[in-house]
Amino acid sequence: MAYFNEIPKVKYEGRHSDNPYAFKFYNPEEKIGGKSMEEILRFGVAYWHTFTGDGGDPFGAGTAIRPWDHLKGMDLAKARVDAAFEFFNKIDAPFFCFHDVDIAPEGDTLRESNQNVDTIVDMMEDYMKDSKTKLLWNTANMFTNPRWTHGAGTSSNADVYAYAAAKVKKGLEVGKRLGSENYVFWGGREGYESLLNTDTKLEQDNLAKLYHMAIDYSKEIGFDAQFLIEPKPKEPTTHQYDFDVATATAFLQKYDLADHFKFNIEANHATLAGHSFEHELRVARENNMLGSVDANQGDLLLGWDTDEFPTDLYSASLAMYEILKNGGLGRGGLNFDAKVRRGSFETEDLFHAHIAGMDAFAIGLRVAQKMIDDNFFEGIADDRYKTFKSDIGQKIVSGKTSLAELENHAIDLKDDDIEIRSGQVEKIKAKMNQYLLNI
Amino acid sequence: MAYFNEIPKVKYEGRHSDNPYAFKFYNPEEKIGGKSMEEILRFGVAYWHTFTGDGGDPFGAGTAIRPWDHLKGMDLAKARVDAAFEFFNKIDAPFFCFHDVDIAPEGDTLRESNQNVDTIVDMMEDYMKDSKTKLLWNTANMFTNPRWTHGAGTSSNADVYAYAAAKVKKGLEVGKRLGSENYVFWGGREGYESLLNTDTKLEQDNLAKLYHMAIDYSKEIGFDAQFLIEPKPKEPTTHQYDFDVATATAFLQKYDLADHFKFNIEANHATLAGHSFEHELRVARENNMLGSVDANQGDLLLGWDTDEFPTDLYSASLAMYEILKNGGLGRGGLNFDAKVRRGSFETEDLFHAHIAGMDAFAIGLRVAQKMIDDNFFEGIADDRYKTFKSDIGQKIVSGKTSLAELENHAIDLKDDDIEIRSGQVEKIKAKMNQYLLNI
Amino acid sequence: MAYFNEIPKVKYEGRHSDNPYAFKFYNPEEKIGGKSMEEILRFGVAYWHTFTGDGGDPFGAGTAIRPWDHLKGMDLAKARVDAAFEFFNKIDAPFFCFHDVDIAPEGDTLRESNQNVDTIVDMMEDYMKDSKTKLLWNTANMFTNPRWTHGAGTSSNADVYAYAAAKVKKGLEVGKRLGSENYVFWGGREGYESLLNTDTKLEQDNLAKLYHMAIDYSKEIGFDAQFLIEPKPKEPTTHQYDFDVATATAFLQKYDLADHFKFNIEANHATLAGHSFEHELRVARENNMLGSVDANQGDLLLGWDTDEFPTDLYSASLAMYEILKNGGLGRGGLNFDAKVRRGSFETEDLFHAHIAGMDAFAIGLRVAQKMIDDNFFEGIADDRYKTFKSDIGQKIVSGKTSLAELENHAIDLKDDDIEIRSGQVEKIKAKMNQYLLNI
Amino acid sequence: MAYFNEIPKVKYEGRHSDNPYAFKFYNPEEKIGGKSMEEILRFGVAYWHTFTGDGGDPFGAGTAIRPWDHLKGMDLAKARVDAAFEFFNKIDAPFFCFHDVDIAPEGDTLRESNQNVDTIVDMMEDYMKDSKTKLLWNTANMFTNPRWTHGAGTSSNADVYAYAAAKVKKGLEVGKRLGSENYVFWGGREGYESLLNTDTKLEQDNLAKLYHMAIDYSKEIGFDAQFLIEPKPKEPTTHQYDFDVATATAFLQKYDLADHFKFNIEANHATLAGHSFEHELRVARENNMLGSVDANQGDLLLGWDTDEFPTDLYSASLAMYEILKNGGLGRGGLNFDAKVRRGSFETEDLFHAHIAGMDAFAIGLRVAQKMIDDNFFEGIADDRYKTFKSDIGQKIVSGKTSLAELENHAIDLKDDDIEIRSGQVEKIKAKMNQYLLNI
Repeated sequence: MAYFNEIPKVKYEGRHSDNPYAFKFYNPEEKIGGKSMEEILRFGVAYWHTFTGDGGDPFGAGTAIRPWDHLKGMDLAKARVDAAFEFFNKIDAPFFCFHDVDIAPEGDTLRESNQNVDTIVDMMEDYMKDSKTKLLWNTANMFTNPRWTHGAGTSSNADVYAYAAAKVKKGLEVGKRLGSENYVFWGGREGYESLLNTDTKLEQDNLAKLYHMAIDYSKEIGFDAQFLIEPKPKEPTTHQYDFDVATATAFLQKYDLADHFKFNIEANHATLAGHSFEHELRVARENNMLGSVDANQGDLLLGWDTDEFPTDLYSASLAMYEILKNGGLGRGGLNFDAKVRRGSFETEDLFHAHIAGMDAFAIGLRVAQKMIDDNFFEGIADDRYKTFKSDIGQKIVSGKTSLAELENHAIDLKDDDIEIRSGQVEKIKAKMNQYLLNI
Repeated sequence: MAYFNEIPKVKYEGRHSDNPYAFKFYNPEEKIGGKSMEEILRFGVAYWHTFTGDGGDPFGAGTAIRPWDHLKGMDLAKARVDAAFEFFNKIDAPFFCFHDVDIAPEGDTLRESNQNVDTIVDMMEDYMKDSKTKLLWNTANMFTNPRWTHGAGTSSNADVYAYAAAKVKKGLEVGKRLGSENYVFWGGREGYESLLNTDTKLEQDNLAKLYHMAIDYSKEIGFDAQFLIEPKPKEPTTHQYDFDVATATAFLQKYDLADHFKFNIEANHATLAGHSFEHELRVARENNMLGSVDANQGDLLLGWDTDEFPTDLYSASLAMYEILKNGGLGRGGLNFDAKVRRGSFETEDLFHAHIAGMDAFAIGLRVAQKMIDDNFFEGIADDRYKTFKSDIGQKIVSGKTSLAELENHAIDLKDDDIEIRSGQVEKIKAKMNQYLLNI
Repeated sequence: MAYFNEIPKVKYEGRHSDNPYAFKFYNPEEKIGGKSMEEILRFGVAYWHTFTGDGGDPFGAGTAIRPWDHLKGMDLAKARVDAAFEFFNKIDAPFFCFHDVDIAPEGDTLRESNQNVDTIVDMMEDYMKDSKTKLLWNTANMFTNPRWTHGAGTSSNADVYAYAAAKVKKGLEVGKRLGSENYVFWGGREGYESLLNTDTKLEQDNLAKLYHMAIDYSKEIGFDAQFLIEPKPKEPTTHQYDFDVATATAFLQKYDLADHFKFNIEANHATLAGHSFEHELRVARENNMLGSVDANQGDLLLGWDTDEFPTDLYSASLAMYEILKNGGLGRGGLNFDAKVRRGSFETEDLFHAHIAGMDAFAIGLRVAQKMIDDNFFEGIADDRYKTFKSDIGQKIVSGKTSLAELENHAIDLKDDDIEIRSGQVEKIKAKMNQYLLNI
Repeated sequence: MAYFNEIPKVKYEGRHSDNPYAFKFYNPEEKIGGKSMEEILRFGVAYWHTFTGDGGDPFGAGTAIRPWDHLKGMDLAKARVDAAFEFFNKIDAPFFCFHDVDIAPEGDTLRESNQNVDTIVDMMEDYMKDSKTKLLWNTANMFTNPRWTHGAGTSSNADVYAYAAAKVKKGLEVGKRLGSENYVFWGGREGYESLLNTDTKLEQDNLAKLYHMAIDYSKEIGFDAQFLIEPKPKEPTTHQYDFDVATATAFLQKYDLADHFKFNIEANHATLAGHSFEHELRVARENNMLGSVDANQGDLLLGWDTDEFPTDLYSASLAMYEILKNGGLGRGGLNFDAKVRRGSFETEDLFHAHIAGMDAFAIGLRVAQKMIDDNFFEGIADDRYKTFKSDIGQKIVSGKTSLAELENHAIDLKDDDIEIRSGQVEKIKAKMNQYLLNI
């Protein structure tokens, strides 16, 4: 059965196209810097937002009108798989991502839940034989069910912790079956509501132990996916332990986990933490820990996670710059962890939204590659830091000097002797606009 | 000469006193948990806000009316030392803190600046022979002068870096002379305005090298103060590298500096980073890196560093709880990095403000000690985490289990089998108010 | 049937009581400034949070464990009424508040919904004959059902608008039957998600018309309740039209509605709009439009509406100051628009939370009345503004001067001739703490 | 004498130009929608940021290197006038704006200050005979001098109030002499630091009286400029009375001032108040009170007024849409209330920054006009609101219905009977990107 009969297969038609079901900037086969856009961008569809989400918010019920709304239980779960692979094909998506509860309903026990998951995974495996769409990552949802109220890997209750561990185990097995490229940990409830009743040390010690067990088990079963941590500062938790990339890096270093993890960085989580998206990408990149991206955007005038489809071309361009400088995302990709607005409740909005996001990153890629080809940012930096390439600067960089030698260098300098130059931010921003409009 | 003749020496008069120049809650000699309040609280006066600051803001000129306003240059610098020690005595402060440029004017070269510093340090040394007031910490101001526009230890210019290194060297020497307990690094300009023109890796590599040189030099001269990093997320920098405790911890770990540093944690910097004051204290404490405190408060409805004198009793109580759980602040203290409001421009406001802050932390100490004596928080936590003390919980905590064993434990659990309990935050908050009002 | 058998009736036991089911500061009959605490505080229980809410959040299912969980439909609705009046009695609440959908399930048509409402209202009417608990206000929920996605009184669809109008009509009728003191309008969906697709003028014109029709109809049926607008800046709407008190005042003035409305001010809405709670109370009070209060609190480090039970004693004291200066709340009251945290899912938390909130405002009342008795704030202001009581100041205040006369007064003044005084904020805050701890 | 000899006159060279001193998108004579770009955009240079500002910030001294740095007092003031008119010419600016203290140093009394102002105004008048550059607006700075600490028109001191009134009088006289199009009131200190010591009612009553006296005096002297209020929520004030457009509208309505004022809307002030720039423009436009614009931008991750040159093309496009829908800005214009970053301290940065801003708004104009020509937004709205054009919808809009009639219409509707449609925000945003890239 087909759910999206009225929607044509989306193709590239160029920037002036009036067809709302066409890519205007994303041309999958077009080569940019030697690789096809499809290879570089590795777009993923988020199963939860696109097939499970209903448009509800804290003040309102679900609004989404979906052709599978009349179904229930496992019938609904199966229909969503059919719809998903039809959608992947129509939107030309190379990847998808899911949490266990997105794809199959929970049973009364984990054993029953796992059986439901297995049924759906069988079905997905079947579809994937003939589909180009692969699994970018999977994960276990350990935040929706009331049992996770006080955390999962950081729960105050040992049974809950065991339950979480068992869900991770199943997640790794499912990932292996479906050939997932990555396995993600997002700790939506791993944090605290109040320091007053929380043993933050015990909780984080326990979380680290869970990660170590996961590493051990993935080795045991020969599942070689990249493990990813997805930082978020708050919501639903008042304060999440994995606040941002730097915080999670300190955690991974402390618990001897840094070699086993990279980051899955979400734009909206970055801004909730007080950082730009590109800042988080940069911090991860410079620590060789940039793994994958949750491509969405937030509203900086709102204080919660809006998970909007990404359309801001500045953000997309600067993100693609960091990604290209990272040599791409390796086994990671650009997963649209984004939902259509509650008011965009019609099925066709799912297509418009993905097209908007894919075109935005295609534009970002074009802009970023052009700036790299022109040596735009690097050239600026080369000039700014040139005094570190000789004399005392070179000694500083190579670690071959001392406070005494540096004092000797500086003690009689007058400010006129020191040539600092303008940072030229305004000129750079104007040039950036020129790059954007001239692609 | 005396600058504060009209102000009496401030003494403890008890909670119902109507004397504005009396402590109502801070009783230096009173024992709390076996130590005197003075020993525990280790209050410090910030030289810059109290003796150098003028009440200016980005939209307005200085307003402060000070009895030394008619003086200039080194005469002004000397008058401030006289005033400072008179003030320390009247307010009964055991410590003070300064940046180099607070105490002496800069010359045309660092050599000249250092000579000015030496003159003032001589004078301070003299005063300190007869004063109970000691130096909590000193530091080098590497953010005010235009040469630091693009950073100091992270400058894009090698001469500027050398200048910074030379200032640090002098700071360490001054600290040694005056017997400073700590040496602080606050990187007000160490960060970036725009990622577009910044080599963030080179800059942070250089910063780490500066810290290593400082460690080497302090060993060389036998200066055994505790090194402190003071995190702040932004302002004046758009994004400061030492964003918060976790971020700076990741940096210190990465560059093999963690054994040499603790943190100087400022309340207002915590909230600018999206954390509560007590969160930052907790993170530092659990990593054994809680060194000292910049005791102030911000306005959570404003987005900049207001550096208000601390009067919020919730914040002071929760901060003192973390400090007492840390076994005190060791060589650190509670430095009032706080300024009287621009509208509080009269000299007597300096006294009212310090009394307000000292009383607030004295109240906080009383509340926190009572809660500890009653095992208030610990008792709550003991109950919440009791399932980790036996059976599968104990195995988890001791690291002696696996995903398979945990799955076996959880696979057939129904949710009714799992006993999670309410976190009882509302009850705890009511009890907290009862503690506060019943001291 | 009784739902809270194990919970005793809550009574005042004084500040040192260890009984968690006792008021420590709220003593209903105690006279403060000539009236009983109960008369002044006029506490209300929010039906939706306390009897309908389930603890769900955007990332998680409901957690609340309630003795009526096994029921459904109208049986559930009726059980909640039983539970509610048992709760009101045990917690000694003089008032309650509800939206139509809180008390009765919606039918397929409004006619059916209204029949359900009528059944429950009959039952309430019966209870209220023998209960001291009255209806503080009721309202129509016009934000949960998907039909309100694009607004109710500001919907882009005329049928939806008509539906909203019909719901308001029924709400007014219900209010009249139950003798409600007020009728509230909260425009949760009255605003825009994007300016790009919104005719903001048409929408606000229509909203004003709805208010005028409501005024007309309430006159027609002889329902003399006070109409209240409840401002909120955002959430669920990206930008709500009734952003804050000032914005809604401009709207009411523009559409000739100002004489018919007062404000229902919520603490958490105030802070989301960038104001303190007391600011919003002050603005309403000075315009003679302070009607009622939604007593809760937010978390200033979070950007969404957390609706916590109010426990912050500064906020409660300053709020009570404004309320006392207003001569009380008239027909309004202090409605606890507050929900127990998702982690506080046990039934007893409902009691702890209400006790916490009632005690907090009882403390606030005691503090505020003491400050008023002492002429604390007024005395400060009298002194600060004294130059407006004579000479040129008096002319200014009475509007009997001109730029020319004022220029003549000022043209040759030197700054030393002008005596401005410190605002003494630090001293005032210290005094405020003293007031708080000495109640 | 010439200060910018090395900088060429800036001309339009088209979007692909590599000349940093050329406009790429701003073509003054090009007609857009029937008028020249210069006529529509009416750019203004802010005297304070460009000629008086020094790049200082709360943590650092001025950095700006300007060719007039060696001068002092009135010599400096005169040099700035020379530089300004040279700059206006080179950058092709049709307007400029100033505060009194920007153009001339203050004397010991207002009489002396006014004499200094007169000298400079003579000089400006002379320049303006031969220059195309006119005065967009002038104003009196009533926030920098310590006397304004507690406000100007809302000061707690009557002498200060008189001083403010006298400054306004002089400002109106200067405006008349120079043919100013507008006169602006920005109340940087008109607000409160703490409600605890502030008589907010008296202060606002006084402020309204000052505005009435200003209206009277401008009539008296025949100065027919448009009066403008410039809202800002905070900074330097903790809470400014003119928080945003809606708040100031309520004030103007209350005090019978609405007919005499329009708004000067600043982008960065909008975002500090929690609104988008275009929101504030819309609110003013719909009340027929959109007067002029302070064209800049803020950093939404920072909580203070950064006053950056505007380069965000989304913001510029949406702003220009509102301005075009307003029929232009009338006597107002686009004043660059923007400063080069502290790190952009070289003289040439002044040019780069203005070029960046002028090109950004030229792009915005092109995008907005194209969307208007295509009926892009209007078409969307026409479709969304079509049910208000007939039947019950028409009755609602014309005010000819009642709750009873609307209930009758809605009472038996099922939700399937109501046809609400998707808001299609994602599709609209994608289209907006297409408009942007295809100009």
